[in-house]
Amino acid sequence: MNLFDLTTAAGRSDEVVEDLAVIAGVRIERIVSTGQSTPTGTWYDQDHDEWVAVLQGEGVVVFEDGAQVCLRAGDTLLLPAHRRHRVAATSGEPACIWIAAHGPAVHG
Amino acid sequence: MNLFDLTTAAGRSDEVVEDLAVIAGVRIERIVSTGQSTPTGTWYDQDHDEWVAVLQGEGVVVFEDGAQVCLRAGDTLLLPAHRRHRVAATSGEPACIWIAAHGPAVHG
Repeated sequence: MNLFDLTTAAGRSDEVVEDLAVIAGVRIERIVSTGQSTPTGTWYDQDHDEWVAVLQGEGVVVFEDGAQVCLRAGDTLLLPAHRRHRVAATSGEPACIWIAAHGPAVHG
Repeated sequence: MNLFDLTTAAGRSDEVVEDLAVIAGVRIERIVSTGQSTPTGTWYDQDHDEWVAVLQGEGVVVFEDGAQVCLRAGDTLLLPAHRRHRVAATSGEPACIWIAAHGPAVHG
């Protein structure tokens, strides 16, 4: 699959997540967002570190402590385990294409 | 560092490799190539799996068994441990921007 190919996301109203590879237990995936966001008041509290990059479009990540990061094409962000965050916004046109690398659980 | 920002590679004649993140022992790096290739007859024989993606430009990977893969923007490739390979060519204009994820050694 080409990272910029939106065929699999065409006509979908939900985010499309596809596995790219697993390297030594670290899962690398592509996420295509088209305007979705994490519901207000909902926080991701992950038990593993995650690294994300935006390849196209824009995405906004907000942390529970108030910090906000707007990611544009080429921007990257480390999401340490248990740093609570949500995706406050994603672009729909163009679609927001993310790469995410998820480590295995830090605890357990 | 923005993945598409070539400031750090400007005026350099060698490849520029920069660490992006380490997730659970998996090192993610950006490589900017500008026409370099692995010397003929030289093969990478890595003791870890590697996953690569080309974000811009083109790169050609050749395996010792004769297989050849031309990667263009958005293309990805898994390089399993000990599958001997070399980079036969990279584009110079535009620069070839890679993301690579290296696992820890499979043996040892």
